[in-house]
Amino acid sequence: MSLNWLLVFIPLALGLDWYGASPIAIFCVSALAIVPLAGLMGQATEQLSIYVGATIGGLMSASLGNAPELIISGFALKEGLGDIVKASITGSILGNLLFSLGLSMIFGGWGRQRQQFNKTVAGVNGGLLFVAAVGLLIPALFHFATGKEREVSTEIAIVLFFAYIASLVFTLKTHRQLVETEPGQYGPGKEQVEEEEGRWSKGKAIAVLGGVTVLIAIMSEMLVGAIEPASASLGFTPIFAGVIFLALVGNAAEAMNAVRFARNDQMDLSFGIAVGASTQVALFVAPVLVFLGYAVGQPMNLHFTYFEIIAITLTVAVVSRLTSDGECNWMEGVMLVCVYLMFAIGFFFLPA
Amino acid sequence: MSLNWLLVFIPLALGLDWYGASPIAIFCVSALAIVPLAGLMGQATEQLSIYVGATIGGLMSASLGNAPELIISGFALKEGLGDIVKASITGSILGNLLFSLGLSMIFGGWGRQRQQFNKTVAGVNGGLLFVAAVGLLIPALFHFATGKEREVSTEIAIVLFFAYIASLVFTLKTHRQLVETEPGQYGPGKEQVEEEEGRWSKGKAIAVLGGVTVLIAIMSEMLVGAIEPASASLGFTPIFAGVIFLALVGNAAEAMNAVRFARNDQMDLSFGIAVGASTQVALFVAPVLVFLGYAVGQPMNLHFTYFEIIAITLTVAVVSRLTSDGECNWMEGVMLVCVYLMFAIGFFFLPA
Amino acid sequence: MSLNWLLVFIPLALGLDWYGASPIAIFCVSALAIVPLAGLMGQATEQLSIYVGATIGGLMSASLGNAPELIISGFALKEGLGDIVKASITGSILGNLLFSLGLSMIFGGWGRQRQQFNKTVAGVNGGLLFVAAVGLLIPALFHFATGKEREVSTEIAIVLFFAYIASLVFTLKTHRQLVETEPGQYGPGKEQVEEEEGRWSKGKAIAVLGGVTVLIAIMSEMLVGAIEPASASLGFTPIFAGVIFLALVGNAAEAMNAVRFARNDQMDLSFGIAVGASTQVALFVAPVLVFLGYAVGQPMNLHFTYFEIIAITLTVAVVSRLTSDGECNWMEGVMLVCVYLMFAIGFFFLPA
Repeated sequence: MSLNWLLVFIPLALGLDWYGASPIAIFCVSALAIVPLAGLMGQATEQLSIYVGATIGGLMSASLGNAPELIISGFALKEGLGDIVKASITGSILGNLLFSLGLSMIFGGWGRQRQQFNKTVAGVNGGLLFVAAVGLLIPALFHFATGKEREVSTEIAIVLFFAYIASLVFTLKTHRQLVETEPGQYGPGKEQVEEEEGRWSKGKAIAVLGGVTVLIAIMSEMLVGAIEPASASLGFTPIFAGVIFLALVGNAAEAMNAVRFARNDQMDLSFGIAVGASTQVALFVAPVLVFLGYAVGQPMNLHFTYFEIIAITLTVAVVSRLTSDGECNWMEGVMLVCVYLMFAIGFFFLPA
Repeated sequence: MSLNWLLVFIPLALGLDWYGASPIAIFCVSALAIVPLAGLMGQATEQLSIYVGATIGGLMSASLGNAPELIISGFALKEGLGDIVKASITGSILGNLLFSLGLSMIFGGWGRQRQQFNKTVAGVNGGLLFVAAVGLLIPALFHFATGKEREVSTEIAIVLFFAYIASLVFTLKTHRQLVETEPGQYGPGKEQVEEEEGRWSKGKAIAVLGGVTVLIAIMSEMLVGAIEPASASLGFTPIFAGVIFLALVGNAAEAMNAVRFARNDQMDLSFGIAVGASTQVALFVAPVLVFLGYAVGQPMNLHFTYFEIIAITLTVAVVSRLTSDGECNWMEGVMLVCVYLMFAIGFFFLPA
Repeated sequence: MSLNWLLVFIPLALGLDWYGASPIAIFCVSALAIVPLAGLMGQATEQLSIYVGATIGGLMSASLGNAPELIISGFALKEGLGDIVKASITGSILGNLLFSLGLSMIFGGWGRQRQQFNKTVAGVNGGLLFVAAVGLLIPALFHFATGKEREVSTEIAIVLFFAYIASLVFTLKTHRQLVETEPGQYGPGKEQVEEEEGRWSKGKAIAVLGGVTVLIAIMSEMLVGAIEPASASLGFTPIFAGVIFLALVGNAAEAMNAVRFARNDQMDLSFGIAVGASTQVALFVAPVLVFLGYAVGQPMNLHFTYFEIIAITLTVAVVSRLTSDGECNWMEGVMLVCVYLMFAIGFFFLPA
């Protein structure tokens, strides 16, 4: 199940770039190259977190776990592609909550009557998703209600980031035992690493982390540069590319883990990856990108399109409803994937 | 409790039509004539399903159970009354989820502290309703976000229909025992028939099915022809007539069964009828009408009005919330009926 | 914890008014003076209710508990400040559901793993909130869908008021024992009074009630007269003043009680105050103000702004989700307060 063979796409991407290949080829190959790098970065983070104690380790895991998305988005932001960055935030939320979680429920639930997961954790995550939905909705709502351009994005980003900090205190301090009913629940990479590869030395973990970061940065710059011409050649809007494809690149490795844990009937792990990734994108990645936007001189707002905010809000409502009972089955997975398909159809036909 | 005495309205309707009576009279009488015919069609389907084995029987019951709506809507579609057809879809969803289910909770819950029903079944149905709400919302959202007319209705209809097929596999195959905790749960007509009338021969069932189909078709053509002039005479908009009256015609017999089962404290049956009818209208009738629209040369889209989609979305959210705990009481029924009344007020005053 | 020392602001307010002080000073001082008066009115109502039997007492408590809001809003309505009245209804709903309940969960949950409350009561209250949200949404939706000015507010107000009456029958008659699992659950003032001050004589209760009503009326007139000039001086819009400040004035005493009960791990009481206040504002105060509007010759509609209705709808959805499991913790409180802050940011920047 390892995706490491995809690393072969790194030299291929560099070669294609050197020979000035078509943007479509560069987009696809650099995207495929990032998938195993994102997976390796997660592994290295988990390995390193073993050496720094549980709390700092949890913090590292929660923040560095989103490094691939942040690196890709940072380059896109620098190129003035703020709308595509926002589309990839939307896509990351929809993709994780509907596609990854849906596939997990289908593959996990097939052949089983039901699968169970921790209701309280699901409740807290469901609540955080609602907070995120409100935060991503207010700037657009503000624009709609007033027709004015005064952005409230920075203030909203601060509140979202505060909610994220509070959730870390909850998860890593006051309710630690709640989310640790199964070992490694919020560090699924950890268990995977231990099973498959044993413990790394501290030096190896740091070296891998550094090397992978540089490689992701190089691939991301190529990927971002190819988005617009590649989308144009393929007849996609850049928004569709952002919502569907860009969002998958940073999350594919995690999605595969989520499905694998579900298949093993470890729905708590699966749920932790898919829903955790969504809350982190909304409460950590999105605010950090707003702050980063000021740093790179390309201020980003949180003014999403109507189609995006309604998609996010309804997705949160559906997932929240289906997970409130602490049980799932394959049919609920089919529902999530159907909702994903319908939104994807909408985004596909939306004009630029 | 039999509604068969209403069959007397069939000859009356034919007579009124012959003598060229007022559209109001023809509308009312043909509508009343369809009510017992829809009930009889349900009975005949249940009877026939006994002879064909459980799975085929379940399929027949799930698809033929919607035949009256499909026949009425087919004639309306042929007459170019697509908006009224969509209004009757909206009305069927609101009427079943708010009015039928609300009345069932009131009559069933009065004098009892609480009534209980299967939470898992309620969860799956609640999820399907969300899928339906998203599907019926996207075309309008698409139109709103873009101002363009590109319809995504056919693609959405295919996804909704796929969700319907999957739900049949879930109900009739993989989770059969879940929905059969009480005998005949999803075939309430069956139990009713057995209690009241005994088993029919296969020939009788087929003959009744054929005869009733012809009569429904004749009454439907008269009903559809009278909608617009009758609405105009009564000061209603055709949309109000579709949402409130037309929706009741095909569902009145089922609604009475739902209330009766609730009174007997068989809320699972009651719930199965009211919520099942809504999911079938959204996931089976609506897509089939889109496909049928191409066949009759009057393509129908799923572009509902804003008022309709917000009514559907909020209704799904309210019902989903009230049924998530597997318990109900009369006050929850009052809430559903109040929400129905408020939407009915809105539709009444909406200009054409 | 008594707020009675704030009574000193009554003579201060009168003095400032006499000397023609700045509107800001008059607004603040008269607002502070109303806080203890509202608390005293609640106490007097509870004391009096002891003498009239449980059912009449419950009715008195449910209706007179909202007297301060009604008095303030009545004066504002007479001055033609209908938009500010509606803003204070919005603010009262948001403030109670997000700020009071959120603070209660934070202060009550800190140092505890979880707090529990009655799920069935939470379910009924959650349902009533949805009914309220639909009712407050339809007039704006009607306006949006049609662009026409035909108001449906009076009809909607009648349905909301009917739902309120039904909920009183539920609470005081058919399901009395449900909400009385802890003594005084829906009369938190009662317990507080008994603990702190003993029983009052019937005469004292009536005298206090009368005196307090007169004082609230005087202070309210001063407060209402100062809203617009004070808001202008402070750089707030009147809507922001209504949503945030005016809403707090009538509810501050109750909010403090809610937090105090939460701290004592009596979340059912806390929940009853915060959520009960919201449902009463939406189902009793709002309709009564519509009826009162006709009486004072300043008809008020229920046409809220988009920002208000989306804020109310999402708030109801969030609270409904977080309370559906009958458990809470401090993180859920942080979420509610974060959502409150984000809406407050939105209202702050909204132009008049």
